[in-house]
Amino acid sequence: MAGTPVSDVLVVGAGLIGASIGLALSDQSRSVTLTDAQPGHTAQAAERGAGRAWDGEERAAVVLLATPPARIAAELHGLQRRGIGAVYTHVSSVQVGVQRAVDALGGDTSAVCGGHPLAGTERSGPLAASGELFIGRPWALCPSAGTSEGALRDVRELALATGATPVVLTAEAHDRAVALVSHLPQVAASAVAAMLTGAGYVDRLAGPGLVDTTRIAASDPALWVEVLALNAAQVAPLVRDLATDLLGVAQALDALISDSPPRPERALQQASSTLLSLLQRGNDGRALVPVKRGAHQQDFDRVVVSVPDTPGQLAGLLAAASTSGVNVEDVRVEHVPGRPTGSIELLVATGTGDRLARVLDGQGWQVQRHG
Amino acid sequence: MAGTPVSDVLVVGAGLIGASIGLALSDQSRSVTLTDAQPGHTAQAAERGAGRAWDGEERAAVVLLATPPARIAAELHGLQRRGIGAVYTHVSSVQVGVQRAVDALGGDTSAVCGGHPLAGTERSGPLAASGELFIGRPWALCPSAGTSEGALRDVRELALATGATPVVLTAEAHDRAVALVSHLPQVAASAVAAMLTGAGYVDRLAGPGLVDTTRIAASDPALWVEVLALNAAQVAPLVRDLATDLLGVAQALDALISDSPPRPERALQQASSTLLSLLQRGNDGRALVPVKRGAHQQDFDRVVVSVPDTPGQLAGLLAAASTSGVNVEDVRVEHVPGRPTGSIELLVATGTGDRLARVLDGQGWQVQRHG
Repeated sequence: MAGTPVSDVLVVGAGLIGASIGLALSDQSRSVTLTDAQPGHTAQAAERGAGRAWDGEERAAVVLLATPPARIAAELHGLQRRGIGAVYTHVSSVQVGVQRAVDALGGDTSAVCGGHPLAGTERSGPLAASGELFIGRPWALCPSAGTSEGALRDVRELALATGATPVVLTAEAHDRAVALVSHLPQVAASAVAAMLTGAGYVDRLAGPGLVDTTRIAASDPALWVEVLALNAAQVAPLVRDLATDLLGVAQALDALISDSPPRPERALQQASSTLLSLLQRGNDGRALVPVKRGAHQQDFDRVVVSVPDTPGQLAGLLAAASTSGVNVEDVRVEHVPGRPTGSIELLVATGTGDRLARVLDGQGWQVQRHG
Repeated sequence: MAGTPVSDVLVVGAGLIGASIGLALSDQSRSVTLTDAQPGHTAQAAERGAGRAWDGEERAAVVLLATPPARIAAELHGLQRRGIGAVYTHVSSVQVGVQRAVDALGGDTSAVCGGHPLAGTERSGPLAASGELFIGRPWALCPSAGTSEGALRDVRELALATGATPVVLTAEAHDRAVALVSHLPQVAASAVAAMLTGAGYVDRLAGPGLVDTTRIAASDPALWVEVLALNAAQVAPLVRDLATDLLGVAQALDALISDSPPRPERALQQASSTLLSLLQRGNDGRALVPVKRGAHQQDFDRVVVSVPDTPGQLAGLLAAASTSGVNVEDVRVEHVPGRPTGSIELLVATGTGDRLARVLDGQGWQVQRHG
């Protein structure tokens, strides 16, 4: 057994997530030790300020495993047998399997509370890490039946220290929820994008709808096969339900093809109503989605301004906006290189758009519309 | 018959698209006349500078119908019989049906060339119009077998004058392409969003992937039922193919469920390879999608900067960026109200990110990463 704890947190696995957690906690003056199967990762993360290299002996108040899900249980068990940590957590994107594996190894499960910060980028490795990766993002905490209140409290405190918003739920509820909000959309986006290959005019006629709908289709296939396989029990029925809904749409569309044999008016109405119902449910579902961290579309006013497409215009506009005292929450720029003008959309808190538009207008900016 | 043409363009239908076309052409000093079944729309569009109200008699070099697709053929025929226009076009989002309806009415089809500007917003009506709506957007031009070269030339010139990029293709190729790049993604986004209703934790665990994937699920259901019905012949088989791919994914996932009866290693490998293949095809399809008007993801460098979340920071950053001479192509702001810091991602032309990062760093900005 090693001596008394000398660090607040030992991060095992110094990739994107582990190194980002190290950076976030170090920024909050926590003492962080780091280790990684690749010594180069440990060194890079340490050099970036994510903590200092673990000597293989030092104890820690919390051990956080940011290693591949298949390895978590065994590594956790090995460290626990050596008494390295007082409390253990991990960051697996699927929880049930890891929780079962940890339980099966028969260690002290009261000291273990699984977790999953819902943050990431399309990059990987310690060089892509950021101490701000978790700010405002959900961090799921999944205590098992055996987890002690103290372990949950310590892991929650760690999540809060990174700027994340803890969400406590069972491993089962977690895996169901991420299947719906993350794994199903990934499958759908990939399947839609897959259909674009080999077709004509895609690059010339694509619009912003396709751009957004297929963005995550650029994700790493090997990584996603692993995630989908881990959560197959939850994802499979959702994908099947989605396919069933789409077959219903296809059938309704068949009935509406104008060249097809004439159909009774009732059949046409039923087909239209199938489409309308799906699109309306889509409206309802979309209304549940926070469009920015914690905020919904209706929480913003928008002010659209026309500007010449030259360096400095955006800066000038935002300098003008800052004189209004209104905080610009987000910015969208729309233009094509080489065109003389573009438009800039400023998102501001609801109720402040009018003031911003007045100030900009008063300073000679060409406000297209706002509301 | 009326006298000689007195306007360059008569816009019939002064909603979002018609009024925006009027604004764009008026900005280019074209003389535009406007009419709408709702006199209030005509007045609003005219007041915004989209043209002057049509007197019901004046002739025009080009008549552009921006009315609902079901009404286009009859209105076009009526105006042509009165000799109002020299050339006719429209902006129907589905082309084959309108082209057939126009041909069936037996007017002079050599003067008619269908068109479809691929632009829009989630708003409607003349008050939402913008003269810059079409800049850099594709404008499909769909001549029929009978369309004269002169008619195509005149309509193409009109599209160019709005800042759009004309794409000439047959009505059939158009309807196939928009089924794939617009109508199928709409159905998929609505179907994914529809599944969110009634589920737990959606609002608390949703991330940016879900936000983008479901954005267009907020579209107007009634409008989309009309569009989907018009293009049912093209959309139905695509939706069915998508459903079939998804059923294949569901079946592969079934094989990977860890609680299921043990399966031969070959079956597991086959299941993984089904998933991998779909995700890889998704990568390939996504690579075809231009992420901004005419540009692809790899065309940009990104520079990410940490800033305090207070008014004026964004303006200050962009003012600093403008001293680098690098043109900022797009901006993403990430923060939560109430948190002390956020990060701002600047997109710049490939090869210019290093310079921008150096300049910002030299001025004391905290550059998180770039590349």
